[in-house]
Amino acid sequence: MKLKLAVLPGDGIGPEIVDQAMKSVKAIAEKFNHELEYEFALTGATAIDQVGDPYPETTHDICMKADAVLFGAIGDPKFDNNPKATVRPEQGLLAMRKKLGLYANIRPVETFESLLHKSPLRRELVEGANFVAIRELTGGIYFGDKGRSDNGNTAYDHCVYTREEVERILKLAYEFAGKRNKKLTVVDKANVLESSRLWREVAQEMAPNYPDIKTEYMFVDNAAMQIIQWPKNFDVMVTENMFGDILTDEASVITGSLGLLPSASMGIHTSVFEPIHGSYPQAAGKNIANPIATILSAAMMFEYAFDLMEEGKLIREAVDASMAEGVVTTDIAEGKAFSTSEVGDWIADYIAKK
Amino acid sequence: MKLKLAVLPGDGIGPEIVDQAMKSVKAIAEKFNHELEYEFALTGATAIDQVGDPYPETTHDICMKADAVLFGAIGDPKFDNNPKATVRPEQGLLAMRKKLGLYANIRPVETFESLLHKSPLRRELVEGANFVAIRELTGGIYFGDKGRSDNGNTAYDHCVYTREEVERILKLAYEFAGKRNKKLTVVDKANVLESSRLWREVAQEMAPNYPDIKTEYMFVDNAAMQIIQWPKNFDVMVTENMFGDILTDEASVITGSLGLLPSASMGIHTSVFEPIHGSYPQAAGKNIANPIATILSAAMMFEYAFDLMEEGKLIREAVDASMAEGVVTTDIAEGKAFSTSEVGDWIADYIAKK
Ligand SMILES: CC(C)[C@H](C(=O)O)[C@@H](O)C(=O)O
Ligand SMILES: CC(C)[C@H](C(=O)O)[C@@H](O)C(=O)O
Repeated sequence: MKLKLAVLPGDGIGPEIVDQAMKSVKAIAEKFNHELEYEFALTGATAIDQVGDPYPETTHDICMKADAVLFGAIGDPKFDNNPKATVRPEQGLLAMRKKLGLYANIRPVETFESLLHKSPLRRELVEGANFVAIRELTGGIYFGDKGRSDNGNTAYDHCVYTREEVERILKLAYEFAGKRNKKLTVVDKANVLESSRLWREVAQEMAPNYPDIKTEYMFVDNAAMQIIQWPKNFDVMVTENMFGDILTDEASVITGSLGLLPSASMGIHTSVFEPIHGSYPQAAGKNIANPIATILSAAMMFEYAFDLMEEGKLIREAVDASMAEGVVTTDIAEGKAFSTSEVGDWIADYIAKK
Repeated sequence: MKLKLAVLPGDGIGPEIVDQAMKSVKAIAEKFNHELEYEFALTGATAIDQVGDPYPETTHDICMKADAVLFGAIGDPKFDNNPKATVRPEQGLLAMRKKLGLYANIRPVETFESLLHKSPLRRELVEGANFVAIRELTGGIYFGDKGRSDNGNTAYDHCVYTREEVERILKLAYEFAGKRNKKLTVVDKANVLESSRLWREVAQEMAPNYPDIKTEYMFVDNAAMQIIQWPKNFDVMVTENMFGDILTDEASVITGSLGLLPSASMGIHTSVFEPIHGSYPQAAGKNIANPIATILSAAMMFEYAFDLMEEGKLIREAVDASMAEGVVTTDIAEGKAFSTSEVGDWIADYIAKK
């Protein structure tokens, strides 16, 4: 099969970890006889510094031509405390999401037995937790009209959702629930927001079409509590963009394995695979960052973008083996810590030799 | 001193727990020779059922004339799954907040040594956590223009903040930080939202006026993680209405003592004191609900609304004594459980006899 990728390393530790993931991608392509074609492109603060735009037109063209995009991370603290900056790395991310139509961000929340002691939660609460959080990614308050009035003294952000947007993501969420444990939790704030009432209305209309799936409704404030108290009660959770930003990050830390969790953003034009941890600027260039989340994102890419399940599985097996052997970076090492590139090499090597 | 109260029991367990708090209020008034005057009023689902309005004009009048309002809880599940209901209990709560100008919701997050084992977090992470979460309560997406267009197929909610609204709540937050450990965390989403950029701008302008207080800025998604991972790092946290709804609920469960936490909502016309747990309909009328959060809300009322610190302290002492003696309801009892009214009586009795 022909695999056409766009590779966007981004900022901070992005380049290092994407390099490691590409080693595995190449090993897989070789082993399974896929024709691999890929092109690197600029994004984030790096792209601002080099061409003045965090998601340049050339990058967009490369993504549009690709079957899948492997993404590192973006963000640079020099932009964070400057509310008046006119170009920000995050704008690149948002532009990419919008222009590629990446409407669904999918984050598996999983625990690793060997890392349970790193979870902030009590072991018995979180052990075995396994759910998928799905966040709408191209609508809501992120992309509504925003601005100032009254000489800059009043600021506004508009949150808008259309029935089509809600239907599209709920359909995908129901499909996930159908393949899993048949429970969908729709998270909203229907007791206050009109947009949430539309979400709930659409969900209530669609639910009868999925008679084998239990649809449950939960207010976002309650969900923020349930994620900590009873994470094992969730199977698939779906919510709008802003709530999803908060809840998926909250959900990711309960596992104790933030550095290991991958994500997929499914789109109209292509799909993007990236680790959920950020650009971690403090570690950039030190060859200490954990590449596993990015390597697992590559596994998701084979599975979700190309339907190549065997390939994804072999990557996962290699990652498990590296962890079982203790070939891991300093953030999770119990004994000796390996460097980013040593872990990347070991995993690619495992794949090649298998 | 003359203490003029409005008492709003509300729905579910509201009436039972407010009854217990009133026993302590009366005991305090007697002991300290305050002239207590109070009037009960309807709110929530109860008010809808009786007069068709969740915050009737007569209730508002009673609140406006009061120096402080003691509030139970509102909410009834029969309204939750009906997105087309035109009158909802929550509207009463929102109307009350708006009409009384309750701009600042204040929630102390505290742990109780004897309840640490109920926390979903590991003991060492949460033990000793002690911070105050301040939520803006009358602005933002809760109160902006909202509605439908396109034959009901598009829904919108507008989030608006003015400089005055932001300044007012930040001033109060700085005052709290000044009396505590001199650290203020301003939570926003300034990398995406214009309203958040206004918040951050105003905070950056005000910060130099509080040179002894360290101002820290944190994105809301990061805050959702930090609350679980490092709750002891917070001293005072302040944020806008919607983020505050989510984060204060998240923060409340990490303590393991949700049933014990009080809150204050400071307003222009009066202030309201209420437990943060909800109306807990499943327990209503069973005389099993924990009244401590409401009794501690009464303690906050003496302290915040009347500046009667000794009075507040005696209530807290009585609550501590009831817990030390094991005179507690079933939710936290280790051995024998006491009923709601037994706990209420015991605490009021302790105050009277002291
Ligand atoms: C960087 C920021 C714009 C982004 C978001 O809020 O979506 C990030 O937090 C994320 O979740 O990918
Ligand atoms: C009931 C609801 C409208 C309310 C809110 O969202 O403010 C509640 O969750 C709260 O936090 O007091």
